[in-house]
Amino acid sequence: MHEAGLRGRIDAALRVFLGSATPPLTAIADDLAPFAAAIEAFVLDGGKRLRPAFCYWGWRAAGGEDGDEIVSAAASLELLQACALVHDDVIDASDTRRGAPSVHRRFAQVHRDAGWAGDPDAFGRAAAILLGDLALIWADAMLAESGVGDAALRRAFGVWDEMRVEVMCGQYLDVVEQARGGGSVDRALRVARFKSASYTVARPLQLGAALAGGGDDVVASLGAYGLPLGEAFQLRDDLLGVYGDPATTGKPAGDDLREGKRTVLVAVAIQRGDATQQATIQRLLGDPTLDVSGVKVLRNVIADTGAVVEVEQLINDRVDAARAALASPLLARDAVPALAELADAAAHRTH
Amino acid sequence: MHEAGLRGRIDAALRVFLGSATPPLTAIADDLAPFAAAIEAFVLDGGKRLRPAFCYWGWRAAGGEDGDEIVSAAASLELLQACALVHDDVIDASDTRRGAPSVHRRFAQVHRDAGWAGDPDAFGRAAAILLGDLALIWADAMLAESGVGDAALRRAFGVWDEMRVEVMCGQYLDVVEQARGGGSVDRALRVARFKSASYTVARPLQLGAALAGGGDDVVASLGAYGLPLGEAFQLRDDLLGVYGDPATTGKPAGDDLREGKRTVLVAVAIQRGDATQQATIQRLLGDPTLDVSGVKVLRNVIADTGAVVEVEQLINDRVDAARAALASPLLARDAVPALAELADAAAHRTH
Repeated sequence: MHEAGLRGRIDAALRVFLGSATPPLTAIADDLAPFAAAIEAFVLDGGKRLRPAFCYWGWRAAGGEDGDEIVSAAASLELLQACALVHDDVIDASDTRRGAPSVHRRFAQVHRDAGWAGDPDAFGRAAAILLGDLALIWADAMLAESGVGDAALRRAFGVWDEMRVEVMCGQYLDVVEQARGGGSVDRALRVARFKSASYTVARPLQLGAALAGGGDDVVASLGAYGLPLGEAFQLRDDLLGVYGDPATTGKPAGDDLREGKRTVLVAVAIQRGDATQQATIQRLLGDPTLDVSGVKVLRNVIADTGAVVEVEQLINDRVDAARAALASPLLARDAVPALAELADAAAHRTH
Repeated sequence: MHEAGLRGRIDAALRVFLGSATPPLTAIADDLAPFAAAIEAFVLDGGKRLRPAFCYWGWRAAGGEDGDEIVSAAASLELLQACALVHDDVIDASDTRRGAPSVHRRFAQVHRDAGWAGDPDAFGRAAAILLGDLALIWADAMLAESGVGDAALRRAFGVWDEMRVEVMCGQYLDVVEQARGGGSVDRALRVARFKSASYTVARPLQLGAALAGGGDDVVASLGAYGLPLGEAFQLRDDLLGVYGDPATTGKPAGDDLREGKRTVLVAVAIQRGDATQQATIQRLLGDPTLDVSGVKVLRNVIADTGAVVEVEQLINDRVDAARAALASPLLARDAVPALAELADAAAHRTH
């Protein structure tokens, strides 16, 4: 299968980059060893590598040849994602990521183990903010040093830049939306589109195509596939956040509910629910003390409104649209089976 | 005077960049308007513009011609610095920056004014983390779009990258040092050298020289000037943090003492102090509840040990070394007067 091989090559590229980027840190000071080790562990120990896969197949779809350079350029997206996740966990005060303590939790423990002065949690947050910054910087370095060449980098800079700006703006809008207590289905869909659909699928595809020198028409065809698929990805994320198995998601059950995440799923449930159901959702959602039975009540109410079935339907519609867009003659034929496979992987994943 | 004109051009370049970078944000969503406004205000409302000045004169010292492109490339350092400061204020929980509320404080107020749900301080921190990320990304974009050309960017990428990595690692080491409760004078000097001397003076000079295509010998000459001067800059920072006038520093009196910053000044005071003085310093330093009279006691004890006089001497020695390095025949003659002036500005500033 294409995917398994590509995943291994992405991991290998990350290992090579980090293998050369981290030793200069420990050469500066021994105290940087836990910092370097934490970023290495975070990046290498998990992640679906979906964004690099979309980037790689965007390159191939635009007629680029296979090569280690594009795999390395694509893998740099995992470092950008590391920044987004590590900072997101600080923002949401999440204890867990990928089944392990989140980075700020890990550094709070470093502080406690050393018996240092001050607040361990504040130290943990400080370290995580700086570690995320370093990952953001390294994303850039990994792309620049990937070997794709100056001309390719110049062509791709616009989309690389827009993508990074969009992630941060999308996160900000998400935080605002949560503080405001959510809104209509349309509004939730717009945030999802902006925050994640573009960043996770469409932009990586376009980055690959731009690196390969693909024209505007190829980029448009990839958008017709990537944008609906990205929405499907985010809608699946909403469902997994509420109904996913902690053993596969690596996140404790009910975390999204306790955080009060204002997802499309929640907006649909509120829209469809009767007065009692709406009141239950508004009362329990975002309650940080929600226990196992509270989580169960909220899950059931959301499902009872029919929101789960409706969101599954929204996902299917979008996957169908994405698959239909693969018929475009502008996309290199040998990339199409992999893109079809990726559509399934993104929309029907369990974590 | 060289400096006044250059400063205005740096401000103008930042205004032009932000003028084209922020409208796409508000086009995405109205909710991004305060986010865009805050980054614009932070970058345009203050700052000594020392790093861009060093970068510009590094370019000129390496034989580069004056031009708007290098001014714009140099100004990008202010966006990197914006990220460092905004994140630093979150890390230190500082209420004030440049005489105004820090970014996280400003966004806590946005949250309060809107009457949103949840903790205003958590919202403020979230917004500040994301705003710092955006500034880090924009630093990159501003450098890339400055117009210095692909070849210059390629030459400079190494030092640009190292500088950014060093800032984040230096900040982490600083946080560790504070948690650990400080150490010897040598150790404090090493952190100062690494955290700030290199980042503030030597690296910006080298960035300018690399952009201009200066050889290793020019870079070495700039290092002989920049490294001691950078240490002098940081030592002045230590003194201003304890004895500076809040009206000019824009920081409340005693903030560094309450935060327990482990500076060279403090390390010298502990080394020179008798047992009583040492005990007073250890007892009061880092006490978040320290009031005006406590600040006064601590200031007097540090001065009584002779630490202030010794640190002034350390500064003078370093400025002398920096000035002596300007005799190098490798540096373009017309850059030397400006570099001499910058040495004074960095070492004998009042804010």
